[in-house]
Amino acid sequence: MNYYEASLIMHEKYKGKMETASKVKVENRDDLSTAYTPGVAEPCRKIKANPEDVYRYTNKGNTVAVVSDGSAVLGLGNIGAAAAIPVMDGKALLFKEFAGVDAIPICLDTQDPTEIVRIVQTLAPTFGGINLEDISAPRCFEIEEKLQALLDIPVFHDDQHGTAVVVAAALISCSRLTDIPLNELPVLINGAGAAGTAIAKMLLSIGVNDILVCDKSGILSGDDETLNPAMRKLGSETNIQNNKGSLADGIVGRKVFIGVSGPGVLTPELIGMMAKDPIIFAMANPEPEIMPDEAKAAGAAIVATGRSDYPNQINNVLVFPGLFKGALQVRAKRITEKMKVAAAYALADLIPQDQRGAENIIPGAFHPGVADAVANAVSKAWLDRMGD
Amino acid sequence: MNYYEASLIMHEKYKGKMETASKVKVENRDDLSTAYTPGVAEPCRKIKANPEDVYRYTNKGNTVAVVSDGSAVLGLGNIGAAAAIPVMDGKALLFKEFAGVDAIPICLDTQDPTEIVRIVQTLAPTFGGINLEDISAPRCFEIEEKLQALLDIPVFHDDQHGTAVVVAAALISCSRLTDIPLNELPVLINGAGAAGTAIAKMLLSIGVNDILVCDKSGILSGDDETLNPAMRKLGSETNIQNNKGSLADGIVGRKVFIGVSGPGVLTPELIGMMAKDPIIFAMANPEPEIMPDEAKAAGAAIVATGRSDYPNQINNVLVFPGLFKGALQVRAKRITEKMKVAAAYALADLIPQDQRGAENIIPGAFHPGVADAVANAVSKAWLDRMGD
Repeated sequence: MNYYEASLIMHEKYKGKMETASKVKVENRDDLSTAYTPGVAEPCRKIKANPEDVYRYTNKGNTVAVVSDGSAVLGLGNIGAAAAIPVMDGKALLFKEFAGVDAIPICLDTQDPTEIVRIVQTLAPTFGGINLEDISAPRCFEIEEKLQALLDIPVFHDDQHGTAVVVAAALISCSRLTDIPLNELPVLINGAGAAGTAIAKMLLSIGVNDILVCDKSGILSGDDETLNPAMRKLGSETNIQNNKGSLADGIVGRKVFIGVSGPGVLTPELIGMMAKDPIIFAMANPEPEIMPDEAKAAGAAIVATGRSDYPNQINNVLVFPGLFKGALQVRAKRITEKMKVAAAYALADLIPQDQRGAENIIPGAFHPGVADAVANAVSKAWLDRMGD
Repeated sequence: MNYYEASLIMHEKYKGKMETASKVKVENRDDLSTAYTPGVAEPCRKIKANPEDVYRYTNKGNTVAVVSDGSAVLGLGNIGAAAAIPVMDGKALLFKEFAGVDAIPICLDTQDPTEIVRIVQTLAPTFGGINLEDISAPRCFEIEEKLQALLDIPVFHDDQHGTAVVVAAALISCSRLTDIPLNELPVLINGAGAAGTAIAKMLLSIGVNDILVCDKSGILSGDDETLNPAMRKLGSETNIQNNKGSLADGIVGRKVFIGVSGPGVLTPELIGMMAKDPIIFAMANPEPEIMPDEAKAAGAAIVATGRSDYPNQINNVLVFPGLFKGALQVRAKRITEKMKVAAAYALADLIPQDQRGAENIIPGAFHPGVADAVANAVSKAWLDRMGD
């Protein structure tokens, strides 16, 4: 039985994967009068008198909204709110299982960015953080930015930043393994959507300074009038020599290929044009840009994918549970760049030097202590912030 | 220690009363690949292909949103979204404990009716029902009506209809106990807010046909230009003789007083002006319109209140868990009048004739089988509907 069949059976048997659970018992009149009326009036009054008390008397401080409009779900595309529920429910499951965070799936039946921002803003009182999920680019940039400006709780688009943090962790590990400093690793990112954009920014944050981003139209550059504003901005922040051309032009001499594009995009011929012993992160899901065996046969020294059936899985589940846990612990008002960098280094640090190798650059999802390592790094980075 | 203190300690200790819980385990890569990617793509695809499959592969069919804008919370008034969380969290607790229904508190940081309607409409994909809660009148009427017209899942404002169903059940029981048919019970309802309005409509549905509704301004009548449209409509649907005057004028000769107003409104003198052996439902919370001992001393034959420390507690918890459970079981698209009437009779029927008495007209919250009795009656009423 494959995972698709098994998943269907699981979802039908259990009706999804999450439910609610009571933390207190209601077995008699006293219980009822304490948990509900009249007793419940007292925490209400306290919160009314002192809004910060919402963290003291409710679960806000451990609750995250997993918000999607269903516009870019997995590799399935724009399938809408209802069809996106199993993914958001799955995210809620991973939040709980990996970090003990209570997450609520919120699948919105609208794809208007302004409306999504306003709705999430009005929903915010019960939540300690907002995890945006599977919202298509470039709408996701605007939604995240506007929401974070309006709210004093963290807003985090996982498809962008979660992916970017794991990629950064894996590249830090590769840098350590190969003894090549991050600023001497020329990188090509193929795919300029939500993930590709965030990866580029994150790599700049950790000191990678030679990045090209390619899309179907070729290498992004800041002066290409045919690109949308987000892509042009991305072209100008990377591609400092203002290169032009196709993926085949851009890949020449690159040490690192990071694919967030589609199956089969990376050929052995293209790998042959890269620098010696190239590093390939082929993360298209479920079919990567090139299969690991083929990449290795073409000369790749290190290969990572998004798949659980090969070594070096680039998996967001390494990041978001611990990142939110850490942010919630210290009531961070947002996720800063330093918190993401701290999370990336915390992940890379989980691989001891003597165990680091071409097939072990990043911990697996079930590596012990991942969420706590990330949470501790993230909360420390928030507490240590200096006007960031 | 009183309930206020106990409640504060409980809320601080547990950080609210509800959490999320996983229905499946995630202990290894296979689990992850089944519950999440790549397997989860399959239920998504199924729902996309057949929207009804959302009930098959997700928890929608057992999930209720408890939606409030914090505008009329308990007796606390307009305390806003954040301060309302403990009540909505408590409601979620009662849904789970009494009926196994998963309920999610949604406290909205807006009090604009049009915006609330639109927001709840966009949230609807993940929910099988909408329980509106603690929204002030007359806004609550418009919000409920518009939402129900837009959605094909039940929308139910509990402060209105939950209260009305329990009151109807208690009055049915009184009619049985006193052997006076419902259409021979002259009723005065004091309070024309959300609850009073719904009680009046519900009593008309069960055959009570002589009703006056009083507000602070006196007896409501259909031709009183000083009233808002909702109240004028209520005045015209009741008060068929177009009486005018104060509460003291209206109460003369009434057999039943139903108070959803404030403490101390009903005096022994007013009770003395009612019909012989009057029936008093004094439901203001936590201080009733008159205390039971005082009402009895003034001649009341039967007294009910909203309090758990006196007999005959008129408590919504008898209704909403079972009502939603029943509606969800048969995927009712709305809550019909017949479903509410069925729920009221199911509650009244739980008191066997030989146990019925002036201090036992309505089951207690922990009476065995309440939620299932209500659920069965409600689901049967939906399945038996004839164009209702």
